[in-house]
Amino acid sequence: MTPDEFRKTGHELIELIAAYREQVEDMPVRSRSEVGDILQLLPESPPQQSELPETVVEDVKQSIIPGMTHWQHPSFFAYFPANSDLSSVLGDLLSSGLGQLGLNWQSSPPLTEMEQRMCQWLQQMLGLSDAWQGVIQDTASTASLIALLSARERASEHAQVRNGLRDAPELMVYCSSQAHSSIEKAALLAGFGRNQVRLCEVNTDFSIDTADLQKNIEADVAAGKKPCAIVGCTGTTATTAMDNLQQLARLSEEYQCWLHVDGAMAGSAMLLPEMRHLWDGVEWADSVVFNPHKWLGVVFDCSVYFVRDKEHLVRVMSTNPSYLQTAADGQAPNYRDWGIPLGRRFRAMKIWWLLRCEGVECLQKRLRRDINNARWLEQQIAAHPEWSLLAPVALQTVCVVHRPPGLSSDKVDSHTLAWCEAVNASGAAMLTPALLNGRWMVRISVGSLTTERAHVERLWQTLLEYTAKR
Amino acid sequence: MTPDEFRKTGHELIELIAAYREQVEDMPVRSRSEVGDILQLLPESPPQQSELPETVVEDVKQSIIPGMTHWQHPSFFAYFPANSDLSSVLGDLLSSGLGQLGLNWQSSPPLTEMEQRMCQWLQQMLGLSDAWQGVIQDTASTASLIALLSARERASEHAQVRNGLRDAPELMVYCSSQAHSSIEKAALLAGFGRNQVRLCEVNTDFSIDTADLQKNIEADVAAGKKPCAIVGCTGTTATTAMDNLQQLARLSEEYQCWLHVDGAMAGSAMLLPEMRHLWDGVEWADSVVFNPHKWLGVVFDCSVYFVRDKEHLVRVMSTNPSYLQTAADGQAPNYRDWGIPLGRRFRAMKIWWLLRCEGVECLQKRLRRDINNARWLEQQIAAHPEWSLLAPVALQTVCVVHRPPGLSSDKVDSHTLAWCEAVNASGAAMLTPALLNGRWMVRISVGSLTTERAHVERLWQTLLEYTAKR
Repeated sequence: MTPDEFRKTGHELIELIAAYREQVEDMPVRSRSEVGDILQLLPESPPQQSELPETVVEDVKQSIIPGMTHWQHPSFFAYFPANSDLSSVLGDLLSSGLGQLGLNWQSSPPLTEMEQRMCQWLQQMLGLSDAWQGVIQDTASTASLIALLSARERASEHAQVRNGLRDAPELMVYCSSQAHSSIEKAALLAGFGRNQVRLCEVNTDFSIDTADLQKNIEADVAAGKKPCAIVGCTGTTATTAMDNLQQLARLSEEYQCWLHVDGAMAGSAMLLPEMRHLWDGVEWADSVVFNPHKWLGVVFDCSVYFVRDKEHLVRVMSTNPSYLQTAADGQAPNYRDWGIPLGRRFRAMKIWWLLRCEGVECLQKRLRRDINNARWLEQQIAAHPEWSLLAPVALQTVCVVHRPPGLSSDKVDSHTLAWCEAVNASGAAMLTPALLNGRWMVRISVGSLTTERAHVERLWQTLLEYTAKR
Repeated sequence: MTPDEFRKTGHELIELIAAYREQVEDMPVRSRSEVGDILQLLPESPPQQSELPETVVEDVKQSIIPGMTHWQHPSFFAYFPANSDLSSVLGDLLSSGLGQLGLNWQSSPPLTEMEQRMCQWLQQMLGLSDAWQGVIQDTASTASLIALLSARERASEHAQVRNGLRDAPELMVYCSSQAHSSIEKAALLAGFGRNQVRLCEVNTDFSIDTADLQKNIEADVAAGKKPCAIVGCTGTTATTAMDNLQQLARLSEEYQCWLHVDGAMAGSAMLLPEMRHLWDGVEWADSVVFNPHKWLGVVFDCSVYFVRDKEHLVRVMSTNPSYLQTAADGQAPNYRDWGIPLGRRFRAMKIWWLLRCEGVECLQKRLRRDINNARWLEQQIAAHPEWSLLAPVALQTVCVVHRPPGLSSDKVDSHTLAWCEAVNASGAAMLTPALLNGRWMVRISVGSLTTERAHVERLWQTLLEYTAKR
């Protein structure tokens, strides 16, 4: 495509995206597509001849947008927010348009050095000390895999340079039963077996029961196994429960375990000094992951992985073929040795745009707005005789169940799934049903960029309406 | 950022990117930045208050672009091309602007279904049979890690659900000494030890010596070890050497190994029916990786991983927490179970834009142009008494050395590094020095989007000029 064709269609897409954001509120939040609808609109074979960009734009409008679930909708309360602030969209556009690729420092000095600086900015914003060094990964799943690989190699005295895990003692990984599914997945990918992952009990607030953790560790040690890693959650996926990191740090130290903190969602809250008590003890961890691509507003994908011992990380992850060696080696970080992929996108650009165009105070204000909106909803739920909160509202996620009078308790699950599906099918809002202690509840995750109090109030009316309908 | 602010700055960035592409030819290809230059231009702390987008645009122009190495420059002959066709940039802009996130089908039906269709289109374009199913990964490093994880689990009868690699036989991985560094890295991350990776000898054309491979396998089997995976290269990094996949397939079958084909760069060449003989035997492989983000022109990052047994892939990589379960499960692929990250970007959009705006024939024409340009350069080198080709020019990468009359052979290495550095420092072109058989040579990788014959002719003049200067 020539620069002139790019100009023409590029301007059109800028208008399309702006209009989409202005109009998204009028669309049903959840897609009304059936499986196969979109597939059917796309020809089975690629075009042999070039097509006009206008026809592609038209297809985006006619076929793609109407089939989408609208993550940027103000009534999107499902999963966790994946905010794509428009300032960050601009940063990402530059990243694509300038066509930079990070392989080593020399292949794109700004890509490496802006990543250094943005990780430092975020570290300060989270209130982390300068003992940490950050690197951008795609997602927390990948970052947690890297944490467990680092833990594995530390506990096995770098078995990877010898005979790998066959050489190592029986290494054990610990997290709570509420930890994200990516933790167990990461352990299994790293070569641990399912028998080496202990999912510990949780307290009534769904934080890890450290007494059960300690019991597990002691039993394992007595059986000749070696504790390798503890993963603490600052904000679990189901209920944003907060593990007590101080206690985990004490156990990690006592048993020489790697302590990894999964703050994928809740990391954003640490921009607020008044919330930082929720991860007291984080400074004793070995690694922390936080996703700017969730609540904060950086376009997906952008996950920041902080480590204390970067030399160890590089030792575990490094490669150094001749064609990548340059005179700058040793002076600047070679981020290819801080993660899995060799080639790297200019992801720092989209962080830079968000932080500069918004500023820290404006971001803090938005996060506080969302926390306050969630607390307002929490109050409505708490005050209503038919509704219950199933977990403390630590941040912006409210976990609820509705028990109409006279409904026998074995029917609550099907009632829950039914009203949640009815709300989602209506298009008025989108919520996520999830299992908690074996029973279905509904997660209401407040925090889309454009979600104001009025949207949460409207949601509450919708909930009342749809639960009354049964 | 409001939609109106986005409009204003968005239009400005469209113009900036178009102008950048028009003017890039006048810039020095390799960055003239010193380590720390960019870092110094970025404040040590994030702004508390929001800044005007115009000031960020100004900083991009003044500080970022002048510090870059220009991958989209027509005289970029370094590494492999990382072409960002402007049509694909538009697709990626939409992906960011529409703010979709793939977690399951329902979270964005178009994201999943377009990915299905684009993988099918690419499969047809490469001439692969419909026994394959594709999925988009970030890079070939990740795809090869997934291939080795799949191999590990097949050879160990899914040890991950028991005691992991401690349970497994001593599994062995084979590739050539010319295989990409990511293969050994992937093996080490997957829990193999360095002792379990055999880097086999190569033939004079730098393809794997299958006799040495067979000897290695037989010795390992005799010693009670279990062959697990063979990685074949269709286009090695240093010289684009082509392993004989038919022979690798025969050995893989005989020893029940997983056969993974790394066609990260050369996969694009398979759009040309006349080049497909280079990977004869690929249909017997278990997995293939190909990077549309290299020569083909899709904006980084976009790597397609094809597998024959998707059930096995899903069994190795799956997670299924309650909050991700939907009524569509089982009807549509859940790509989160086909790779490491749970959340997924709408990467298919940028493939769709490239393939529609360019069309297959236009892409083929460009690839043929590059191959012809490389052959022209090959002929100049071959005809010149002071220059030598160090490897066959299978595709578009020409590996050269210049030996001036009277220079003792032990001084050729320093001469090579000196003239290559002089060319790169001049800004006229960018080349990559690399070790081959322990001696330095220079890789000239033809294939940037805007590289025409005239640029290759000019490069040849530059080479003659800079080697004459010593």
